[in-house]
Amino acid sequence: MKNFEIGIIGGTGGIGRWFADFFKREGYAVHVSGRKIGMDMPAMAEKCDVVIVSVPIGVTCEIIEQVGPHMRRGTLLMDFTSLKVEPVKFMLEHSVSEVIGTHPLFGPDIDTLAGQNVVLCPARTERWIHWLRDVLKRNGAHVVETTPERHDRLMTIVQGLNHLNTIAMGMVLGKMGADLSELKDFATPVFNIKIGILKKIFDNNPRLYAEIITSNPDINELVDIYEKTLSELKELIDKRDAGGLTEMIRKNALKLEIRKT
Amino acid sequence: MKNFEIGIIGGTGGIGRWFADFFKREGYAVHVSGRKIGMDMPAMAEKCDVVIVSVPIGVTCEIIEQVGPHMRRGTLLMDFTSLKVEPVKFMLEHSVSEVIGTHPLFGPDIDTLAGQNVVLCPARTERWIHWLRDVLKRNGAHVVETTPERHDRLMTIVQGLNHLNTIAMGMVLGKMGADLSELKDFATPVFNIKIGILKKIFDNNPRLYAEIITSNPDINELVDIYEKTLSELKELIDKRDAGGLTEMIRKNALKLEIRKT
Repeated sequence: MKNFEIGIIGGTGGIGRWFADFFKREGYAVHVSGRKIGMDMPAMAEKCDVVIVSVPIGVTCEIIEQVGPHMRRGTLLMDFTSLKVEPVKFMLEHSVSEVIGTHPLFGPDIDTLAGQNVVLCPARTERWIHWLRDVLKRNGAHVVETTPERHDRLMTIVQGLNHLNTIAMGMVLGKMGADLSELKDFATPVFNIKIGILKKIFDNNPRLYAEIITSNPDINELVDIYEKTLSELKELIDKRDAGGLTEMIRKNALKLEIRKT
Repeated sequence: MKNFEIGIIGGTGGIGRWFADFFKREGYAVHVSGRKIGMDMPAMAEKCDVVIVSVPIGVTCEIIEQVGPHMRRGTLLMDFTSLKVEPVKFMLEHSVSEVIGTHPLFGPDIDTLAGQNVVLCPARTERWIHWLRDVLKRNGAHVVETTPERHDRLMTIVQGLNHLNTIAMGMVLGKMGADLSELKDFATPVFNIKIGILKKIFDNNPRLYAEIITSNPDINELVDIYEKTLSELKELIDKRDAGGLTEMIRKNALKLEIRKT
């Protein structure tokens, strides 16, 4: 048993539960609380040296306002939210503790941290950042440190665009009356991979993905670009212009440095 | 050595080359022709019992018109095009041979046929269908037989929607000035998979994918549905309506039978 205790608010499900198991395996005493069960927040802040907020985006700041004032000086308050600007601001304002905004870039379906990206936004920390870096890296995580602003800007792509793209495909399939069991016999390897991603997002926790999209500050700009892109594609497709479409793909491949010529 | 010879027009690259290697391993004598090299078409039709047309969609029917009249009665003319209605119609009209429209639903990057889908559209065949089924199934392929019409309708989804979705994501990334090497540190497993698919399509053979999309007879309807979908998503996102977006995902998941409740 290590010499301090960890509390996870939202530790009864999803990524919170994953880290509860992880820290237990690491030898820490872990306390969790869910919507209706577990330790109350003042008691958790009293007992634990590290408190992690791992709740839906929509209630994160509200929970931080409740737990933050109970955190003692010299302890660590963290969150696992998919966006970092607001939660980090709230943690700094509502506590005197150390604050590290954290975003594990994976879901609870993985087995180990090996090779997984974890973003840290060290906001007010001297002592705890060393512990956190160490426990993550020792388990093989790829740890990146950056500002909340840069993190959120990149998440517009990694999560906003990515999930919007998946949801759009799923909705078009639904509107076309697609029968996935019929399509199975006609699937390509790439189509199967896309359907696997779709199932993950449509079945798993649609609310999580809906919140990731609607909470992103730059999502409107992204949707506008997506719409504009589609109307450019439509123009070429309406003209059955294979050459123009090839050129458009090639130009973007160059821009993204996917191909050299 | 088996007792007949196979000719592949377009057998110097892509899936044509893959099957040239495959049939050689199966013990057949295989002749190939590319744009500028190899056996000419009358000589190939004269020498071979099976001729396979494996050229870009845009020139498939033209090549069939050239080779078809040289095919002898009792031989087999096949094509590997991503659409089946037009090529099968042309093969029937321009030859007296047996005709089987074929679509291997994979790219030349796979190692073996095991588990891969192959669609057959037996259009005029008595003898050769048994050989073709047998050689594919014996190597582990999942063989599906259907009409050219049903094949093409399903390809609007498996290829049209799938590739349009990938190309849209790649173009939005390009327009946003995304830096894939910067994003690598911030990627989730799903984002990495999507980027892998994107690289395959943007780097590999953009013309192939552009032709698959622009040649599909129902692609305009699909693009219209995609545009409508995006404007529905935009409406919810503009209102930051996470509940409405969750409901929309859930409704489509039910429709696609991805989830039960």
